[in-house]
Amino acid sequence: MKVQAPRGVMKTSDITKTENPDLVIDTQNEKPKYRIQLNKVGVKNLKTFVVTERSGIRHHIVPKVEITIDLPAELKGVHMSRLVESMTEELSDQFRVHPSIEELQIKILEGLAEKHPFSRGEVKFDFEFGYTTRTPASDKRTWEVCDVIAITRKANNGPFIHEVEVQVIGNTVCPHCMANNEGLTHIQRAIGKLRVVGSTESIPTYGSMIEVIESSFSSRTYSLLKLEDEILVTKEMHKNPLLVEDVCRNILQHAKDTFSNSDLEMFAEARSLESIHKHDVIAQGRIVTNGD
Amino acid sequence: MKVQAPRGVMKTSDITKTENPDLVIDTQNEKPKYRIQLNKVGVKNLKTFVVTERSGIRHHIVPKVEITIDLPAELKGVHMSRLVESMTEELSDQFRVHPSIEELQIKILEGLAEKHPFSRGEVKFDFEFGYTTRTPASDKRTWEVCDVIAITRKANNGPFIHEVEVQVIGNTVCPHCMANNEGLTHIQRAIGKLRVVGSTESIPTYGSMIEVIESSFSSRTYSLLKLEDEILVTKEMHKNPLLVEDVCRNILQHAKDTFSNSDLEMFAEARSLESIHKHDVIAQGRIVTNGD
Amino acid sequence: MKVQAPRGVMKTSDITKTENPDLVIDTQNEKPKYRIQLNKVGVKNLKTFVVTERSGIRHHIVPKVEITIDLPAELKGVHMSRLVESMTEELSDQFRVHPSIEELQIKILEGLAEKHPFSRGEVKFDFEFGYTTRTPASDKRTWEVCDVIAITRKANNGPFIHEVEVQVIGNTVCPHCMANNEGLTHIQRAIGKLRVVGSTESIPTYGSMIEVIESSFSSRTYSLLKLEDEILVTKEMHKNPLLVEDVCRNILQHAKDTFSNSDLEMFAEARSLESIHKHDVIAQGRIVTNGD
Amino acid sequence: MKVQAPRGVMKTSDITKTENPDLVIDTQNEKPKYRIQLNKVGVKNLKTFVVTERSGIRHHIVPKVEITIDLPAELKGVHMSRLVESMTEELSDQFRVHPSIEELQIKILEGLAEKHPFSRGEVKFDFEFGYTTRTPASDKRTWEVCDVIAITRKANNGPFIHEVEVQVIGNTVCPHCMANNEGLTHIQRAIGKLRVVGSTESIPTYGSMIEVIESSFSSRTYSLLKLEDEILVTKEMHKNPLLVEDVCRNILQHAKDTFSNSDLEMFAEARSLESIHKHDVIAQGRIVTNGD
Repeated sequence: MKVQAPRGVMKTSDITKTENPDLVIDTQNEKPKYRIQLNKVGVKNLKTFVVTERSGIRHHIVPKVEITIDLPAELKGVHMSRLVESMTEELSDQFRVHPSIEELQIKILEGLAEKHPFSRGEVKFDFEFGYTTRTPASDKRTWEVCDVIAITRKANNGPFIHEVEVQVIGNTVCPHCMANNEGLTHIQRAIGKLRVVGSTESIPTYGSMIEVIESSFSSRTYSLLKLEDEILVTKEMHKNPLLVEDVCRNILQHAKDTFSNSDLEMFAEARSLESIHKHDVIAQGRIVTNGD
Repeated sequence: MKVQAPRGVMKTSDITKTENPDLVIDTQNEKPKYRIQLNKVGVKNLKTFVVTERSGIRHHIVPKVEITIDLPAELKGVHMSRLVESMTEELSDQFRVHPSIEELQIKILEGLAEKHPFSRGEVKFDFEFGYTTRTPASDKRTWEVCDVIAITRKANNGPFIHEVEVQVIGNTVCPHCMANNEGLTHIQRAIGKLRVVGSTESIPTYGSMIEVIESSFSSRTYSLLKLEDEILVTKEMHKNPLLVEDVCRNILQHAKDTFSNSDLEMFAEARSLESIHKHDVIAQGRIVTNGD
Repeated sequence: MKVQAPRGVMKTSDITKTENPDLVIDTQNEKPKYRIQLNKVGVKNLKTFVVTERSGIRHHIVPKVEITIDLPAELKGVHMSRLVESMTEELSDQFRVHPSIEELQIKILEGLAEKHPFSRGEVKFDFEFGYTTRTPASDKRTWEVCDVIAITRKANNGPFIHEVEVQVIGNTVCPHCMANNEGLTHIQRAIGKLRVVGSTESIPTYGSMIEVIESSFSSRTYSLLKLEDEILVTKEMHKNPLLVEDVCRNILQHAKDTFSNSDLEMFAEARSLESIHKHDVIAQGRIVTNGD
Repeated sequence: MKVQAPRGVMKTSDITKTENPDLVIDTQNEKPKYRIQLNKVGVKNLKTFVVTERSGIRHHIVPKVEITIDLPAELKGVHMSRLVESMTEELSDQFRVHPSIEELQIKILEGLAEKHPFSRGEVKFDFEFGYTTRTPASDKRTWEVCDVIAITRKANNGPFIHEVEVQVIGNTVCPHCMANNEGLTHIQRAIGKLRVVGSTESIPTYGSMIEVIESSFSSRTYSLLKLEDEILVTKEMHKNPLLVEDVCRNILQHAKDTFSNSDLEMFAEARSLESIHKHDVIAQGRIVTNGD
């Protein structure tokens, strides 16, 4: 029996599935109306769960995922479900423990290459990453959380390239106001970012990137501070007044020193949520290490 | 000609429009599957443009709008387009100037009452509101922006009731750390909120609410500060150290004093973006004025 | 040696710590300038990590936490660090497994009661919650993620009261357009919410709340759909056209049926991200079960 | 009288303002600890109000502003207040009407060049932009709102370069599902973006960019639709089923055709808020016009 489509519906093909139920119409492989190559096509804001373990420390991560590939000019579409499957097949067992996000992302791209052709593929995870520290005077253990964006990409049969951005909360103490105001100044929450781009051998751990950023502020911040800690932190802040420009340069210099044995392109940003203004101030820079 | 619906489509009625083209099927007036009264049905995140003028000062406002009414248990749906029209008809002329957001909201509800029955109707605008001030030492004019949520509602033929929430950025200076740390302390951006609920006669201007909030922080904040202003502001902040609890109580007390001639229920919140922590601290309270 | 405070700094007391180093100035216990009782004071946007296990299924949760208590009119402030400690002490061991978020929240409030007096205390977690399902035709396992807000509060030595809100993504298919347009209609992503308030005995599992919401849409949604699944889901959607008003009533009725043995106050909201408009449409309602 | 700084405060200079009140310590002109050139330093999330008028149509805009310049390796900081002043001086009169955002941004950069040296300067506005349209069948006037990001930059005495990104809401109707499912398919809200980069002569109007994007969806969307409009729009959508890949290519091709007389680099993105999934799908591409 021929089933009628709703009136006025444009058919993408003269052959409809109901006339020949075994035949799937592969719209994606048709010719597009406009022959324009697209550099990124895929899924975004897909949420999942991942467990990693590195150096005996286990991390539970709830990333927002983006998986994209390029699309040649002569093909209409990407088979989106294969992009999702390249991930779900790696995560099918809830308790599988991955050595790192980067190694999982490589596996997803390797699995995807077997399902769907592409010249350029990319997997991006955006998540919160937890770590422990100790309060500076009372020596109590606290949990801290920072934001991480981790990307792995492969283009034209080249090597896997990783891009990792870590964002941590700290503070700035204005040295300009302090110098002109008898030691009185304004202080505020600040946000430091470090993004590194490099090969699988070069890419640093999240922990080492967090340390680079945290050591670049007027002071580190903590989830818990007893009065003795608060006094210590506040004294340290006043001894170390920094503009956002200083925080940004500190991140770049500390990263260069810490990762001097690796080939990395590195970007830093400091943003200060000014306490005397309704707006923020920012500073951005870039530096390159050559591991030779 | 009879046009066939796609196979398997559930019809909401045996009479379809194509058989009798003059008959609109009014799905909204059918009986719902479950006879449950709904207290709010309508449109949300609708954006528009409004011009107001009060005391000779013109404001251009780009609100996100929510318009909702209640729905009796025996009716399936609301005619959503009538809710939108109740607003677009008031704003049909781009250059129409309204005396206030609250008077426009009353007109929208009055217009809606002629289009659609309801027992309880509500119009909510969420927008940025600009105002000018002068820098404290250099006396330059600056523009400042705060967030406003304005609601007008009417229930069971009662009077129009307004609810206005204003949110302004300021700062806190910790008096506890200062007292225990030789005058050294931490400072941070803070956010003050005041929400008032009352009749059309009682409801204050946004400007008077902004003044109540701004006067409740350790210091006001400014878009522009030259060095002489920055020094003045920083000195003022250190002379006026406040916990978020203090800021919240200041807002409540200043509101009570300022609006003492009106009948208002008022709610305040202060939130401090701690510079020594990654988290915030908050304080909330409530107070009532009786204009008698 | 006496250290001088910066000029112009208001001291909260005549006795400074440096003159008598053993004496901590307890600013929080001073009298406030305005004697106004505050109903909520505490920490917000504090992030942490929690592991729960219920019926053999382990969940890893990264909540944003708010812990608040009331503050009497005659006290200036809350000891914020004790609020944080009431949580960190329960989570000090990374691998401690909690039977549920609600039981952890009770322990936090019990621990807090030993550290800090309060009449009204509340712990709120805002997090993403993962669950598995199977694709409807191809029967593959997928991970799905929804949003949960879980609150536990205690007031005036009453029992612990819980408030749980679950938000899940589904869709709506417009029956009004379908009835007037020869079966053609518009379809869109929708968001369903269910919030329940009740005692520890009454409060349902997140899984049962997710099921109530997912069964209330035109169709459930899935992370992965192969073509056979997509066809099945699309056919189901067209057989089950629903307004947001219908989805909201479905959630309320399904919740009433499912939780009929418990005493619960329940609130539902459906929001549809209209595909023919730039704005959304919403419906909200409330229902009560009496477990007797 | 010499005023003592709080103990432990690092001075940025041996000369303090209080010893010689006429001397301002210009911290920004000191040498930084690390001699690293920074490519962007400035203010962000600064809010203001602007009125423009083009072809007799007036627009009221509430942008979030970012103004940044580069900072040489040998200077410690930027004089942030001069960046703010370069804007406030152009906007000092509330009722001044600017011919376009781009011309205002050029004036800001020209004013800044007189206040502060830089090699590379950039002004970025992020705002909502309103326009009117008419409903497709009932011919009623409606207001629509889209998002615009407008950037003007100048580097190394080169010409002013503009970058304008417009984002508009539309929809997609899946042709793959339609072809395999007897005309039944899923439909959803989608978001189209077009970003153009070019000289002051080449840069198109926002209105022409909006038209390029709106004509690229399965259908345009409207704030108001009466039933006759809703039927028309829904029929059009079903006649024009499009993947996000199709929408992205449509935007690129329509932009190329529309702006063929200009030299522009153009980027497009389509994002579809899938109604059968909890995640989105995206497509991105790039095209260049050569006005010769």
